[in-house]
Amino acid sequence: MHSLQFTEQSSSNGVVEREFTVGDIPGALWSPASSPPAASVWSPASVWPPASDRSPASGRSPVSGADRAPLVLMGHGGGTHKKWPGMVGRAERLVRDGGFHVALIDAPGHGGRPRTAHDEQEIAALYAARSAGGGQRAAGEPEGPVVVRYNLHLAERAVPEWQTTLDALQALPEIGTDGPVGYFGLNMGTAIGVPLTAAEPRISAAVFGMFWPDPLAETAKQITVPVEYVLQWDDEHIPRESGLALFDAFASQEKTLHANAGRHKDVPRFEADSAVRFFVRHMGGGTAAS
Amino acid sequence: MHSLQFTEQSSSNGVVEREFTVGDIPGALWSPASSPPAASVWSPASVWPPASDRSPASGRSPVSGADRAPLVLMGHGGGTHKKWPGMVGRAERLVRDGGFHVALIDAPGHGGRPRTAHDEQEIAALYAARSAGGGQRAAGEPEGPVVVRYNLHLAERAVPEWQTTLDALQALPEIGTDGPVGYFGLNMGTAIGVPLTAAEPRISAAVFGMFWPDPLAETAKQITVPVEYVLQWDDEHIPRESGLALFDAFASQEKTLHANAGRHKDVPRFEADSAVRFFVRHMGGGTAAS
Repeated sequence: MHSLQFTEQSSSNGVVEREFTVGDIPGALWSPASSPPAASVWSPASVWPPASDRSPASGRSPVSGADRAPLVLMGHGGGTHKKWPGMVGRAERLVRDGGFHVALIDAPGHGGRPRTAHDEQEIAALYAARSAGGGQRAAGEPEGPVVVRYNLHLAERAVPEWQTTLDALQALPEIGTDGPVGYFGLNMGTAIGVPLTAAEPRISAAVFGMFWPDPLAETAKQITVPVEYVLQWDDEHIPRESGLALFDAFASQEKTLHANAGRHKDVPRFEADSAVRFFVRHMGGGTAAS
Repeated sequence: MHSLQFTEQSSSNGVVEREFTVGDIPGALWSPASSPPAASVWSPASVWPPASDRSPASGRSPVSGADRAPLVLMGHGGGTHKKWPGMVGRAERLVRDGGFHVALIDAPGHGGRPRTAHDEQEIAALYAARSAGGGQRAAGEPEGPVVVRYNLHLAERAVPEWQTTLDALQALPEIGTDGPVGYFGLNMGTAIGVPLTAAEPRISAAVFGMFWPDPLAETAKQITVPVEYVLQWDDEHIPRESGLALFDAFASQEKTLHANAGRHKDVPRFEADSAVRFFVRHMGGGTAAS
């Protein structure tokens, strides 16, 4: 098993950001700067671990797990990376408003990671589909089939990387093996997150969104943990019926669809806050440290 | 114009509840007990009027409007009334967490209000449809067509009553004519609220949900204010496609669908909190008192 090596650390506004590697996988971990975590905007009582476990009287030490907080894994979208501004913003909200640890890793072929010949070929195919589509994207070869094919290929490489990374993260005393784990990723983050969540019993709640159902829906049928699913009602890439079909496929008893008017890139910022509340609801209360 | 007469007043946990009549329409008004309103769980700066307008230095007096807060009109569901526990709970959340005034009136034929011969006939038809449907509700005559027909009839009587009530509410110094007005109602509250919002330019944001699109969708096409729409993904009365069709009909540029797994009566409690945030977003900032 690869252990996690921290390479850089910085801190601002109550959030500590640490870059790390696990073998050749580069990642970043955002954590509350102080313990107990910054007060939640909901109820402090709903933040895990319970306040009573975080009091000085309970003997706080990194090794005892008294500083522990639940972990959210976050998957970035296609063409971006672990430090993409939109990702960092969401990570910081999860830390500040939910008291969570948040981890991102660069997907295969993304960030500074090497590309295979297959990566180069698929990226070229994607650009070709885009320029064939022209400004309107409606005519010509659509990029959807290339995105689906390439993202699902990347998921096959990314799922074992996430599992190795999760092993290493849970070996950190401030995370540990007994706390809840969530997953949050849209677009390619959903293409990777759905098979990861289906394969990984440690993940107990997930926020997904904006991907095509075929063939991902077959994997979604194996998922039973609570799911929040985000889609754009006027998405110019993913037909509305396709988005609804993927949401419908999840076997989860608790699942919520958030559909907002607007095009693919217009997901409202308040959905990031909604994701924080979702994780607080499903990972914040009840699940005490052992 | 009928003026508003208060008949009873009580107060608990920071919320003042006053029952009132406007002519023969009975209603209830929930308001923040103190001014400035209880701190919002989001940003106090997002509560209308701006904090600067509520400071003692600005010369607070009921007549000057310095105590004013935005108003949310709330419509109850079929067979219930203005003091139904679920309605009171939502009203209190809007007051405590959003700093709003909240008004409910009994719909025609509901609460203690007299029923016409037509009311009695339609209620009998509804019970007949239910018992014909049996325990499963799938077989036999469905109740949907009766609910649609009767609720839309009630809406024709209720819309002018709401407009008269809104006139009277805006004559109160703590509400006034220049603040934003929202509408929140599911089921029959949507059957009444959609034509009310289409007819009433004073309403600037609305939360609707769980009604049939035919013929309500034609009216929804006239609505352009921000809308949050709630539906149940496994509603045993309203087919999924019907719920989606009504959401689709709103002409609003800003609209959000919240669809939750579960049957008709299983709307999660967190949707009430979401409605508070929706009204804070759309009525809380920017709109200063004149």
